[in-house]
Amino acid sequence: MLSGYKSSGLLKARLNSLLLISLSSSNLIPSNGVEYILFSNISSDVSAIENDQVIPFQSFPHTAYIPPWVNIFTATIIMLKNGIALHHREKCSTGLSGLTAYAGLFEICKPKKGEKVFVSAACGSVGNLVGQYTKHLGCYVVGCASSLKKVKLFKEKLGFDEAFNYNEEADLKSILKRYFPDGIDIYFDNVGAEMLEAAILNMNLDGRVAVCGVISQYTDNEKRARPIMLSVIYKRITLRGFLANDYLSLFPEFITTTVNLINTGKIHVLEDVSIGLESVPSAFVGLFRGNNVGKTVVQVSDN
Amino acid sequence: MLSGYKSSGLLKARLNSLLLISLSSSNLIPSNGVEYILFSNISSDVSAIENDQVIPFQSFPHTAYIPPWVNIFTATIIMLKNGIALHHREKCSTGLSGLTAYAGLFEICKPKKGEKVFVSAACGSVGNLVGQYTKHLGCYVVGCASSLKKVKLFKEKLGFDEAFNYNEEADLKSILKRYFPDGIDIYFDNVGAEMLEAAILNMNLDGRVAVCGVISQYTDNEKRARPIMLSVIYKRITLRGFLANDYLSLFPEFITTTVNLINTGKIHVLEDVSIGLESVPSAFVGLFRGNNVGKTVVQVSDN
Repeated sequence: MLSGYKSSGLLKARLNSLLLISLSSSNLIPSNGVEYILFSNISSDVSAIENDQVIPFQSFPHTAYIPPWVNIFTATIIMLKNGIALHHREKCSTGLSGLTAYAGLFEICKPKKGEKVFVSAACGSVGNLVGQYTKHLGCYVVGCASSLKKVKLFKEKLGFDEAFNYNEEADLKSILKRYFPDGIDIYFDNVGAEMLEAAILNMNLDGRVAVCGVISQYTDNEKRARPIMLSVIYKRITLRGFLANDYLSLFPEFITTTVNLINTGKIHVLEDVSIGLESVPSAFVGLFRGNNVGKTVVQVSDN
Repeated sequence: MLSGYKSSGLLKARLNSLLLISLSSSNLIPSNGVEYILFSNISSDVSAIENDQVIPFQSFPHTAYIPPWVNIFTATIIMLKNGIALHHREKCSTGLSGLTAYAGLFEICKPKKGEKVFVSAACGSVGNLVGQYTKHLGCYVVGCASSLKKVKLFKEKLGFDEAFNYNEEADLKSILKRYFPDGIDIYFDNVGAEMLEAAILNMNLDGRVAVCGVISQYTDNEKRARPIMLSVIYKRITLRGFLANDYLSLFPEFITTTVNLINTGKIHVLEDVSIGLESVPSAFVGLFRGNNVGKTVVQVSDN
């Protein structure tokens, strides 16, 4: 599957300096109907960040074979420039996924202390950070995921107030009612479909939905939400789509805040590491099967 | 159907001073599952408005028989206080529907000159004003409605750039693409369902949707939009529900602006008048059948 890349002289040259390939299924870049892989080069040069400068993304798209069940594939290649600026573990939370969580939460949802926050796909690279940021802020946080193991992790390690395994729940509207007896103020949506419908039905007045990902739709285009728009009107709900790319100016603030929270033990880094370039396909498929716990990364070099 | 009201001493007393009953199907008040009629008393006392004071809505709900196909009925009773403050024709555009158009457009959509605006149910009491306000502002405006007669009215009388009869169009996505080759910046949604889906597919970056009404869903709860949420993400679209009630503080500004535009011939008043209290049921049903052209009012007194 990746042989096309190995034959690319440009990519080979770049791969020599790689530490990690970071895989994403949410908050993707538009495909415009063309199958492609977008490699985004995030520089993590700390001196640049200290000078309050952000080195812009430099992207170079490659057309390649993509499995028929997905038309978009995003791999963020974390490149090393002039030495390792951040520790390996910090990188897992401070890449594009981390910025997605940070910008989506603070710019789109604007949470206030005490508000009730629901995060779907809360074990993903974005979701786990959204939950941890809001918990740190003093919100009531409930996450959902696809296994009991993840649910335990939310409550025992990440400090979520509640969590549930949506695979065990037939009636999402009722389960949200149970976990949010006072309603949901903020829904950070990574999945779409029935979960979005159920969240809207349980939202409070002036509820905010950050539309971050639609994982339900990546593998089945017919699995789409049919929200009750009357509820959107009556409850003055705002739904807003966003991409992290629009918030690059927040990068220094995001890095500083997040690294500080990691280093003081206020938030935990969740990563799911595979070794070797050949593991990219299985790691990527795992994202759509809900196998990953935290940020999915592929380590292709150990320097 | 309305005999219940006639037997109400309170209502009878109030009816004696009525000029018009104004009927609405969009931007309704929540029903909370209870069948009721909400009578909102809008005072249109000009002296109060000139003093920059707004007389608050005073509502008194009545439980009554409602046809089974609709669970909400809003009748705004325009009461006369100390003489007629505004002319009859101005009232038609300066009631709750007018405030809905004004607040939804300027507070939710924030149109800028030159932007491309699409209005559904554009012949309704709200839609026709949204189109006229935006046209006056220098936007490109397209409206849709349910008959050729209304389409002609938009273009010939109201100055819309384009208009179409959605009953003649099988492919809403394509028709919007044809009328908006450069995409839609603002969609003022009064209908929901397939029209909302098609509008989202044709929106530009940073598109805004004012979720004002869901007339498709009033008579068939299964007729719900299944928007492509990936488009909402990629195009950073904001959908926002609202009720005019939240914008009562805009009432003086709205009245002044609108009366001025009417009196200088910049916008036209569209009204659909039935005579006599007994015509309320048929006038109301007409709203859901798309019979009305402009604001539906029932004249119950000619003083």
